[in-house]
Amino acid sequence: MTELHQMQCEACRVGAPQVTDEELATFIEEIPDWQPVVEENILKLQREFSFGNFVDAMAFSQQVGELAESFGHHPAILTEWGKTTVTWWTHKIQGLHKTDFIMAAKTDRLHQT
Amino acid sequence: MTELHQMQCEACRVGAPQVTDEELATFIEEIPDWQPVVEENILKLQREFSFGNFVDAMAFSQQVGELAESFGHHPAILTEWGKTTVTWWTHKIQGLHKTDFIMAAKTDRLHQT
Repeated sequence: MTELHQMQCEACRVGAPQVTDEELATFIEEIPDWQPVVEENILKLQREFSFGNFVDAMAFSQQVGELAESFGHHPAILTEWGKTTVTWWTHKIQGLHKTDFIMAAKTDRLHQT
Repeated sequence: MTELHQMQCEACRVGAPQVTDEELATFIEEIPDWQPVVEENILKLQREFSFGNFVDAMAFSQQVGELAESFGHHPAILTEWGKTTVTWWTHKIQGLHKTDFIMAAKTDRLHQT
């Protein structure tokens, strides 16, 4: 089975399918450190990454930004002293697309390297 | 009169004085684009900076991060497509110190250059 982080992003567009509850349950198993959160009535994926100082958190935020830009799919990246909180969702469909789970898995990989 | 952005940061420490209401009213006049906001019962200063794309927002976030690190005083920096939201407050005193107004003024200068 192809793992999430190996998949290619599908173009996000108005009308693209949101993940079903069943898909969500399956995908989330591959990214167990991510939490589904609801912000302003929109379902999103969120994970907090911890670091020992501000500079490392900022550097990771920068890496996530480069990953996002390279895929043309952009999260919210909150940088604070010692932590970076990344939130993925698909603006165009006001919810979660499979792409968001792929990007979350790729973000995990970035953190492991 | 010395303007805010020219002032030096004072070391933040537990017990450092929070700004008085009178000081807040005076300082905020120098940084009119910043809003006092209350998050989790803590008074903070927040401004949203707009950009035409993600890369410029990320680059500005990076600059704010470098400014913060150079002063040893760190904000929350939220990077999204087309905007960076910067929030200053002083963790040690759970509120606003004069330093936060100075950093907000310095952040404005960074945006102008």
